[in-house]
Amino acid sequence: MDNPALVDVTRGSLTESLHRGSVAICDAAGKLVCGIGNVDARVFPRSAIKAMQALPLVESGAAEALALTDAELALACASHNGEEMHANAARVMLLKAGLTEDALECGPQWPQRMEDAAKLILANETPCGLHNNCSGKHAGFLGLAKVMGVETRGYVEPFHPVQREIRLVMEQLTGDTLSEDVCGTDGCSIPTYASPLRSFARAFAAFGTGEGLELLRADAAQRLFDACINEPYMVAGADRFCTKVMEGFRGRVFVKTGAEGVFCASIPELGFGVTLKCDDGATRAAEVMMATVIETMLDLNDDESVLLDGLVNPPVLTRRGIQAGHIRPRPEFLSTLKTALN
Amino acid sequence: MDNPALVDVTRGSLTESLHRGSVAICDAAGKLVCGIGNVDARVFPRSAIKAMQALPLVESGAAEALALTDAELALACASHNGEEMHANAARVMLLKAGLTEDALECGPQWPQRMEDAAKLILANETPCGLHNNCSGKHAGFLGLAKVMGVETRGYVEPFHPVQREIRLVMEQLTGDTLSEDVCGTDGCSIPTYASPLRSFARAFAAFGTGEGLELLRADAAQRLFDACINEPYMVAGADRFCTKVMEGFRGRVFVKTGAEGVFCASIPELGFGVTLKCDDGATRAAEVMMATVIETMLDLNDDESVLLDGLVNPPVLTRRGIQAGHIRPRPEFLSTLKTALN
Repeated sequence: MDNPALVDVTRGSLTESLHRGSVAICDAAGKLVCGIGNVDARVFPRSAIKAMQALPLVESGAAEALALTDAELALACASHNGEEMHANAARVMLLKAGLTEDALECGPQWPQRMEDAAKLILANETPCGLHNNCSGKHAGFLGLAKVMGVETRGYVEPFHPVQREIRLVMEQLTGDTLSEDVCGTDGCSIPTYASPLRSFARAFAAFGTGEGLELLRADAAQRLFDACINEPYMVAGADRFCTKVMEGFRGRVFVKTGAEGVFCASIPELGFGVTLKCDDGATRAAEVMMATVIETMLDLNDDESVLLDGLVNPPVLTRRGIQAGHIRPRPEFLSTLKTALN
Repeated sequence: MDNPALVDVTRGSLTESLHRGSVAICDAAGKLVCGIGNVDARVFPRSAIKAMQALPLVESGAAEALALTDAELALACASHNGEEMHANAARVMLLKAGLTEDALECGPQWPQRMEDAAKLILANETPCGLHNNCSGKHAGFLGLAKVMGVETRGYVEPFHPVQREIRLVMEQLTGDTLSEDVCGTDGCSIPTYASPLRSFARAFAAFGTGEGLELLRADAAQRLFDACINEPYMVAGADRFCTKVMEGFRGRVFVKTGAEGVFCASIPELGFGVTLKCDDGATRAAEVMMATVIETMLDLNDDESVLLDGLVNPPVLTRRGIQAGHIRPRPEFLSTLKTALN
């Protein structure tokens, strides 16, 4: 099944490029409220499910034992810019577990923004694992390993107790069996398991509402949800979609991006979870898709409207900052969404 | 008409993302040797036609009057990395025209590679127009304006004599009428005109062979072709597709990338021009498409085979440099190409 074109990139009066994709909106019982494209196709969730991968850290009591703060739990759910405050918070998380950055197995990554890269360059430093956008997640994994009393080395391998624990949680949340043949290696070296798009949407409905979860898991989900809402800067950083939306919506939505055009959301007031994937992996399109879904689903106040307008229709700029076109949802995408949700 | 999926991006044993696109291969008479997808759709050629935009510089005698070297002419056709040697060569081109970097209207851009950005940061500098990947093209425009005796300021505007001259050349080469309604603004602020994909393929067949061109234009095309073949590093730079292919093929092919997934080539020994566009604008897919087209079209020696193998099937890596998947042409794409070309 071919997924429909959902997003146009224009230049002048023409469409220059376009992005196809699929969208699943489900409730916690798994009912498909809206499905666009093939919602049964398996997708790698990549970083979009970091908040779920952090559940064992909280459920096990490790987060409490290590006295992790909201900011640190938000960082465990983050794909951050590698700004100084992100790297420092990851370092502190490791310290709380009696570890240093040498324990990280995510690999180094330059900070996202040139101004943060420049700080390293001027200090004659190169980036390390702390600057990797996944460093908080990895620090959480390591903290969990320590509290579980298992070897920390090799914590990224599929059969390490930490990764087995996470796979079990994902199997329970998605209702899917995660075998080796749907396993890939994520950019930060941990296993990532492909499940049907709609099963992640269901999982995020449960994550945001607690519906259908055991009490311990529901509490852990609430703790992580609140941490990200309270510390949205730690989830991404300056000028980032996830941070802007969670700052602007003050608890109405949880959103999290993943590599290769994946995006997930929980919208507790509606009881829905959302998962979408841009076929070609483009983040610019996944962001417009998610902004469009949120705009269509929620009654917005003025501030929320202004915020979303900029995210639904971001400009395409020249290097002098002049608008040459824009990225925008296709009219058919908008009408399909509206029909499904009303 | 929907363009077919041509390139897969895999992770583990699954396809994680895919890219659709269109490919046109024509001879200089305009005969379509191979057409995949909608080859009549208009596409913005962006930077892929820089060598054609440099024709007036050579035809007018300006290149000779300014004593431009092969390296400088290659830079006029380039989307370069903004390395020191690129920025310096652009500065010299401007000097030869009695101008400085202040005349550039392309806007600033950070060098492509962190090590080149680091040199600026350590020197307490920020990037200027010289580091813009289009600085050589702009220096060529300014040199032409000087030799034409027209005002240099505003040389990026559609009705400036330099841009009118280029539009005329593009109309002649594509056989298309370039009106305002197919005009967009390129990232470097100059006009870019969308024409049918196949008309650019025909134009590149003529560019590489001289067939059907007036003598003056054929000579100018040959001069620019040779300059890029002789100085491929100036056309792009370290670790770049265009540089690697033109270095490795020693005159057998001219290739040039453009933003939003456009790629053009001239293959003189076959008399063909190639133009392709990835629907979603991804360079990673456009590169694999072009490498696949070249691999299918030409008899290769061992060195050329090794070079292309790496470009047809580039790995997807983790941040620790371990292969997690690859980017590869779809079997249907390969078989369509083979059928059309044999």
